[in-house]
This record gives sequence, structure tokens and C-alpha cells, in this order.
Amino acid sequence: MAASESRRDTAQPPKESLQFPVLSRVFLQPYLPVSLKSSSSPSAYPQTTPAKTSLPHVTLTYATSLDSSLSLAPGTQTHLSGPQSKAMTHYLRSRHDAILVGVGTALADDPGLNCRITGVGGYGGKELIGQPRPIVLDPSARWKFNAESRVFRTARENRGKAPWIVVAQGNEEKMSLEQRKVLGSYGGKLLSIPQRKPEMEDPTGEASTEAETYAALDWQSLLDTLAQQDVYSLMVEGGGTVINDLLHPRNAQLVNSVIITIAPTYLGQGGVVVSPERKLDSQGKPTNAVRFKEVKWQPLGADVIMCGRVEV
Amino acid sequence: MAASESRRDTAQPPKESLQFPVLSRVFLQPYLPVSLKSSSSPSAYPQTTPAKTSLPHVTLTYATSLDSSLSLAPGTQTHLSGPQSKAMTHYLRSRHDAILVGVGTALADDPGLNCRITGVGGYGGKELIGQPRPIVLDPSARWKFNAESRVFRTARENRGKAPWIVVAQGNEEKMSLEQRKVLGSYGGKLLSIPQRKPEMEDPTGEASTEAETYAALDWQSLLDTLAQQDVYSLMVEGGGTVINDLLHPRNAQLVNSVIITIAPTYLGQGGVVVSPERKLDSQGKPTNAVRFKEVKWQPLGADVIMCGRVEV
Ligand SMILES: NC(=O)c1ccc[n+]([C@@H]2O[C@H](COP(=O)([O-])OP(=O)(O)OC[C@H]3O[C@@H](n4cnc5c(N)ncnc54)[C@H](OP(=O)(O)O)[C@@H]3O)[C@@H](O)[C@H]2O)c1
Ligand SMILES: NC(=O)c1ccc[n+]([C@@H]2O[C@H](COP(=O)([O-])OP(=O)(O)OC[C@H]3O[C@@H](n4cnc5c(N)ncnc54)[C@H](OP(=O)(O)O)[C@@H]3O)[C@@H](O)[C@H]2O)c1
Repeated sequence: MAASESRRDTAQPPKESLQFPVLSRVFLQPYLPVSLKSSSSPSAYPQTTPAKTSLPHVTLTYATSLDSSLSLAPGTQTHLSGPQSKAMTHYLRSRHDAILVGVGTALADDPGLNCRITGVGGYGGKELIGQPRPIVLDPSARWKFNAESRVFRTARENRGKAPWIVVAQGNEEKMSLEQRKVLGSYGGKLLSIPQRKPEMEDPTGEASTEAETYAALDWQSLLDTLAQQDVYSLMVEGGGTVINDLLHPRNAQLVNSVIITIAPTYLGQGGVVVSPERKLDSQGKPTNAVRFKEVKWQPLGADVIMCGRVEV
Repeated sequence: MAASESRRDTAQPPKESLQFPVLSRVFLQPYLPVSLKSSSSPSAYPQTTPAKTSLPHVTLTYATSLDSSLSLAPGTQTHLSGPQSKAMTHYLRSRHDAILVGVGTALADDPGLNCRITGVGGYGGKELIGQPRPIVLDPSARWKFNAESRVFRTARENRGKAPWIVVAQGNEEKMSLEQRKVLGSYGGKLLSIPQRKPEMEDPTGEASTEAETYAALDWQSLLDTLAQQDVYSLMVEGGGTVINDLLHPRNAQLVNSVIITIAPTYLGQGGVVVSPERKLDSQGKPTNAVRFKEVKWQPLGADVIMCGRVEV
């Protein structure tokens, strides 16, 4: 952060704030959104990504084990990545207007969904500058949050923004009046988005090998809505169901970049696994579900970071 | 290769021989076996691993996708790694006395199981110097090889050694007389090893969550037998069943190092997956199945290589 910015700080950064060295930031730059709101980024160097289109820049970011697990078991949180990778995640949050998780993650982790990099609002910076908007995908409004849920506590302490909660059109009333009051009083809101229409036929031969057990929202509609609300960059953090849905060939072209942390461990069978649905070629034979291009690997602590773009 | 060695070459290296630059070799050194048979290694720099014990040095090496798949589907071969990683695998083969695969891999890939690095026997070098011994784990003798199987063609062309085939004690006769003749005439042999005894009880709380569908041979007996046959270093290459069995907590301490190639792609659901059986802690809660220490990540082409040792 520039010295002139430090002088404007309203408070010393609290102890739990994180550092992500400028040198480490360099390798991430080509994969990050162009900053449209200069105030939202504490970084001082030029952006190198192409100018944005009408949809938000979508960055998919998560940490897995070598066996592509996000956690040891559904409904539990597993600490996978080391301190540097964790600081990287918080730095990445500062570079996006909004961060998104599925309701499974909200239920399992009770996450704060704020950014703790030194220099952003609440961590040495002014107001909530650099804090991303938390977004929770909850089509059936099954997240029973209240004012003590961590994301609201964080908002109350002026260390993060109140969440936007996305439900399926028609499900707005499933969220209790009480909850809608909490949401509104902290400056959060409810968005409603159509569910994805069931697929008619499948000209590309992409198999639907798994019965979908979740009510998937339509990503295109969601991203359109977010763009209308001045969200120009979105970091999707998880969990497994959301990531696999976004990496499905039907959605993968909406992803601008992926930044994956891999930790040197096998969690073993039974975890929450990132592995998209299988894809079939024109002869009905399985083929790679997703390939990445412009790939860069960067060791960071005991982990490695893979940056890339989806090959479409 | 030193010029003096080139002059001793019996033939020019054939076109399909591979180069793995000396500079790229450096990062692998700490994870490689100490060379006991100086003639078996075409390398010229000092070894840094500790002196060997009574069992062979076991290196576990394979290539996976980001979702830890070895191939798109059982019974098929998938080309995952790039040309540099492939050359690395062949270099690693030159640094081990023997290389081992399960019968599933023999059936799926009809592999040559030789080393094509420039300078080894058959690829510019003398006799079969630097060629590893291929070993196929085939407890029930279900591999119906003949003289046209690639490993025997390779042996016939003086480009690799004939295989040793490991069956379970009592199953020797399941291999046809015809096959035993082929094996013997190329200088291969049949080894018989006891099967692993079913576990009595489980004091460590390690769950046996999966019914074993294969007849697992006992690794300790196999390694003992190999050491008696002057195999001081063994590279285990796959496939999924063999790797997961070796990474199981009951066996993982037999592994000296792992060298894993990760390719920047998701193969998707339905592949042959490396993910060991889940491990439970003393309270019955799932915990990391395997952790690695002394980890080093090395980008190589579009892939990354992870070197490490099992934390036991
Ligand atoms: N390691 C990491 O980086 C990381 C990051 C985040 C989370 N996690 C872990 O991941 C686990 C949670 O993953 P999860 O798979 O259970 O839940 P999730 O992906 O967080 O949430 C899935 C739910 O989101 C809803 N959803 C709405 N639109 C969707 C769409 N288009 N596609 C997919 N889902 C949509 C569905 O709710 P309905 O079921 O109500 O329809 C779905 O069940 C937790 O263990 C958490 O700790 C790890
Ligand atoms: N990407 C890579 O680096 C790589 C490397 C190698 C292979 N592969 C791929 O992996 C796939 C083959 O994997 P796979 O799992 O089907 O077969 P596999 O692991 O090659 O062979 C498994 C078989 O080996 C026998 N075996 C004997 N002792 C064993 C022990 N202690 N533990 C485990 N197995 C033992 C069993 O035979 P019985 O069933 O007769 O009891 C078992 O079914 C193929 O698709 C191949 O292309 C990929």
C-alpha cells in the first residue's frame, strides 16, 4: 500500500490482519479482473487483463488436496492450505467486487466472507474500501442465519459488508420475515434469480450422468443481475457443488480465470470432491471435462497455486 | 552423457529416444535412490539420499489430472502429461533397478515398460545398461500375454529387459505352460509371493471402508524378495489400485518418495482415481489419509511435479 494511503487510515490494522507480499502478487496479475472501481483495490500496479465485457469477470478460486477434495466430509470445514495461500485468498478477495459461496458452505463453515488483508476497510483502511460483497446462493432459502451468524457479526464490527442472498424465483417467501429484517437492517438484500431450465436435448453429446440433487440457479441470469448491480468482478469460492456446476461444459465459458491452491496431502475417500461431470465426445467416448490454457504454477509455502483460463 | 561414454556406444540413439536435460534433473536428486550399481545409471553427479536399508528404495511415480484421475475410464490409457514430464518418467526409470505396475495397467496399456532416455542400453548405450526390470503384479495370473505383447517385443529388440511376473503363492499353475515358456525364453521369470492376510482388528482406528475387490499381495514380502534378487530401487508407476494400496496407512511407510505429475485438466467423473482409503483418528473422525513432507513443486511444461516423502 502506498504511504499516502496509510496516512489516510482511520485505524491501525488489527492483529488478525494478513500480509500478502507485493512480490507474490505479481504472478496473479494476468488472471485478475481489471479494476473498474479504483477505490476497491489497494494495489498500485497496472492491470493486464482485457477490458471487461457486459458480464462480471468471474474468478474461480479454491483449495484442494491432491485428491481434489475441498474437505474431509460434507458439512465440515477442513484447513487445507498454508498461511501464505490463506493470505493469497484474502488478497484475491480485495481484488473482487463480490465473493460467492453456495449454501452448503454457509451451513458448514459459518464463514465471515470478508477480507483481512492489511489496508482494506476494517483492517487499517477507510470505511469498507476493498471489502467484497458476500453472496450466498441459497435457492430454497434453507440457510437459517441470524444476527449472530459470522457474516453479520463481521458487518456489525465494520469489518465486512452484509451479504446478498440469492434465492430461486418464487422462493422469496421461504425466508422468514425475521431473517429478512436482519438482512435489511445490516444493508444486505435478497435477490431472486430463475432456476436453470432442465436441458432439452444434448447436441454436444455432453452426458448428464448424475441426477442433480440440488436446485441449480441459472448462472447467466445471476451474472446479468450482478452486473446491473455494479458487480464487475466476482470471485467464486465454493463449495463442491457450486464449483462442479460452474466447471460443467454448459457453464465453463462464463469463467474468466481459475486460481487453484493444491496442498500436499491426500484427504482420502469420502470428501467433498471437485470433479466436474464427465464429458463425452461426438462418438460417445469420455473426453477431458475441462482443459486449462495459459497455465502458470507457482509454489507458495508447502502448496502450489495453479492459475489458468478455461479452454472453450 | 560424457563424450567418452558416447564413443563406447554400440549404436546411435534411435529417433524415439528422449532427452531430459541435466538442469531439470537437479530438483529430483534428493528423492532418488542412491545408486548401488554404478553401471545402472547414466548420470554423472553425486547422490544425496541416505544410504539404503535392507528393503529397496521405493519411489511412487504417476501422472494425474487436477481431479486425481490416472485415466478417463478403467481399462483405457489417457495421455495426461506433456513431453517434458514424459521424458522425466523415462529418466526416472533409468535411475531404478526395477519398475512395477499392476495387472490392470498391463491389460489396459500393453506397456513397453522400458526406458527410452538417450544413453541407456538400446538407445545409444551398451547392452541393457540403465534399463529397469519390468515387474507386473498379477496375483491371479490373469494377464494373457504372449510373445507379441509389447514388453516382449521390446525385449526382443534389445531395448528393454524381460518382465518378472508376480503371482500369489499357489497360483503359479494358473499361468499356462506356453506363457511360462515365453517368459523363460526371454529371460523373464515368475515370482510367487504370499497374499496379504486379512486384518484382524484395527488398533489405529483406520477404517476399512471399502470391500477389497482385488487380491492384494503383501508388499513387505514382495520387497524382501526383490531385495534378495538384487533389486535395490523400485519405481511403482500404477495403476490406481496399486497406488491406493501403497498409500494406505498400512503400507505408506514402505514408500521412500513420491514424484507426482499433475496436468492442468479435469478428466471428470468416472476415471481411475488416486485417493487412498479414508483414515479415522482415535475419536473415529476422518483425518488426512496421507500427508507429505519435504515437499518441492517444480513446473515442467504445462504440468507441475510434486516431490515429497510420506509423513509417517
Ligand atoms: N477448500 C475450499 O476452498 C472450500 C471452499 C468453499 C467450501 N469448502 C467446503 O465445501 C463444502 C460445501 O460444499 P457443498 O458442495 O456441500 O455445498 P456448496 O457448493 O457450498 O453449496 C451447494 C448448494 O448451493 C445451491 N446452489 C444454487 N445454485 C447452484 C448452482 N448453480 N450450482 C450448484 N449449487 C447451487 C444448492 O442449494 P440447494 O441444495 O438448496 O438446492 C446447492 O446444494 C464444505 O465442506 C466447505 O467447508 C471448501
Ligand atoms: N497416469 C498414470 O501415470 C498411469 C500409470 C499407470 C496406469 N495408469 C492407468 O491406470 C489404469 C489401471 O489401473 P487399475 O487400478 O485398473 O489397475 P492396476 O492398479 O494397474 O492393477 C491392479 C491389480 O493389481 C493386482 N494387485 C496385486 N497386488 C496388489 C496390491 N498389493 N495392491 C493392489 N493391487 C494389487 C490386483 O489384481 P487382481 O484384480 O487380479 O487381484 C489388482 O486388481 C489404466 O487405465 C492405466 O492406463 C495410469
